[in-house]
Amino acid sequence: MTLVLNARDVEQSTDMHRLIEVIEQGLREEALDRAVVPPRLNLPTQDGFFRVMPAVMNESGLMGYKVFHGSLKAGVRYLIAIYDQKEGGRLLALMDAHYLTAARTGATTGIATKLLVNQGSQTVAVIGSGLEARTNLQAICAVCPVEQVAVFSPNRERRERFVQRMGTELGVEAVAVDSPERCVQGAEIVIVATNTSSQPDPIAYCGDWMQAGVLVNAIGSTSTFLREIDPETLARADRIIVDSKIQVEGESGDIIAALAEDKYDREKVVELKEVLVGRAEGRTGPKQIVLFKSVGTAVQDVMAGFAVYEEALEQGRGQDIGEFLDLKTF
Amino acid sequence: MTLVLNARDVEQSTDMHRLIEVIEQGLREEALDRAVVPPRLNLPTQDGFFRVMPAVMNESGLMGYKVFHGSLKAGVRYLIAIYDQKEGGRLLALMDAHYLTAARTGATTGIATKLLVNQGSQTVAVIGSGLEARTNLQAICAVCPVEQVAVFSPNRERRERFVQRMGTELGVEAVAVDSPERCVQGAEIVIVATNTSSQPDPIAYCGDWMQAGVLVNAIGSTSTFLREIDPETLARADRIIVDSKIQVEGESGDIIAALAEDKYDREKVVELKEVLVGRAEGRTGPKQIVLFKSVGTAVQDVMAGFAVYEEALEQGRGQDIGEFLDLKTF
Repeated sequence: MTLVLNARDVEQSTDMHRLIEVIEQGLREEALDRAVVPPRLNLPTQDGFFRVMPAVMNESGLMGYKVFHGSLKAGVRYLIAIYDQKEGGRLLALMDAHYLTAARTGATTGIATKLLVNQGSQTVAVIGSGLEARTNLQAICAVCPVEQVAVFSPNRERRERFVQRMGTELGVEAVAVDSPERCVQGAEIVIVATNTSSQPDPIAYCGDWMQAGVLVNAIGSTSTFLREIDPETLARADRIIVDSKIQVEGESGDIIAALAEDKYDREKVVELKEVLVGRAEGRTGPKQIVLFKSVGTAVQDVMAGFAVYEEALEQGRGQDIGEFLDLKTF
Repeated sequence: MTLVLNARDVEQSTDMHRLIEVIEQGLREEALDRAVVPPRLNLPTQDGFFRVMPAVMNESGLMGYKVFHGSLKAGVRYLIAIYDQKEGGRLLALMDAHYLTAARTGATTGIATKLLVNQGSQTVAVIGSGLEARTNLQAICAVCPVEQVAVFSPNRERRERFVQRMGTELGVEAVAVDSPERCVQGAEIVIVATNTSSQPDPIAYCGDWMQAGVLVNAIGSTSTFLREIDPETLARADRIIVDSKIQVEGESGDIIAALAEDKYDREKVVELKEVLVGRAEGRTGPKQIVLFKSVGTAVQDVMAGFAVYEEALEQGRGQDIGEFLDLKTF
């Protein structure tokens, strides 16, 4: 059977702890060269893009892809397809992946935070109040004993709504703050998860605000035209951990800007999967300033999609369209 | 709405004349640089492959991909997804593409035959008796006034069944022949559409058999390990027309073998789309020996998939699963 999951099915079948678990498994697999992940394809359409991101997971016995298309003007759509490798490969599920993209980005931040944060950190600052801010905060609360959360977003109503919702959901003391600089003051963990492309100044976080020991997770700049952190942030970080060196350098406007100003020192950059399997060092001292920067990879999508499929199957969610792909034997 | 079409829906919604028409349109679009077609991705799985082939058609306003996966041992499955580019891009259809892959290969042979054959050709020889032999013969009969068809296939029962079925379906005089050499003798058009990978000698057609004026269409060798024509066939051809230079050289075992023996002279090779728009010459004399060699491209898949979607929609076939991909606007 093939399961079709719409946006609502996917959100109701997403468990953050499980996502963290399976994506960690995927990253290990990738580190051990058991995953096949080609550079993602980004094809121009009449007014936007058609992005195709496949991954084959040869340890988990899975494969699949995300297709992400549209334009910033007209809107975008996300599809994830998950196959297992048994019996020539069966199509398990097709799902709307808007929510899941945000959730897997959060889960990946959770994995990075577990590895890179100073033990016992309890204070988080969030810049942003959208879906990605929500999923990233959920993931951090899943891996750290968070007690206090400060939130800044330029729209007062939005940041207050976010504080109310997330404070209740996560059982933390959350406050809305009216300046980003004051928001991040004293926070042990910072999340920068913005969409500032329509603002006169897209920079939402400055390296000058960084304090000793902080971990900054920046996930908003995932295209060349999207910005949120200034080059100084990259310059001041002692260690920079990324989800994919090649994608971050090619796709993140923040990294491209820092490279242009010679403020992205490759000597201090390592990939998350290398830290996870102990082949590279993450944080090496409590006073270090550490930055985690991600743009999203197909490994994260396929592993997260599989976890959602399993959960939906167990809960009986979604539309079963039967096994519509015939097996052709020779 | 998104339409899901299984193997039966697809076969019943396929019209060869319409496929020839839309694929021709796609090739023109590609020739005019209005199509975006990256090299197809071929990713290794535990025991086979996961092949992802996207194409964006910016004149037709379409985009999509074929995913072809499995192994020769376990079996393979094919999926085609078709999107239009309107409103940020809507997913129109998901379909089983086993039959359609054979049909679009046939349709492409039909386009090549129209352009490369000597006018008024009436005799066809077919080597092979499988699905691809069927669709290639259907396409040739759609573009030429075929009267006589000779068929060879090593299994007598299969070749006789093929002759009976296709003779009736196409209204031609069809005969089964017990040797490939005698089968092709005197034929103006030859189709080589075999799967000889399990035979001791995989060569099904030899260049020594080529007669002045013949057009040979060879479509079976689409992977490095698949063979059907010998290097001499390439050497003896005056003109070689291919669907994709880069794919043919990288993926066809026949071309790789001819290259190794220095019998594939790139000087005489041109792409079908170039001939179609008049930028390159196909046949330049009635006595010339012309070879058409194709391995299949994503442009053919996406255009054929769209034609099938339109026909299925009109006939009310398939399963409507609603518009399950949400549009996310900014």
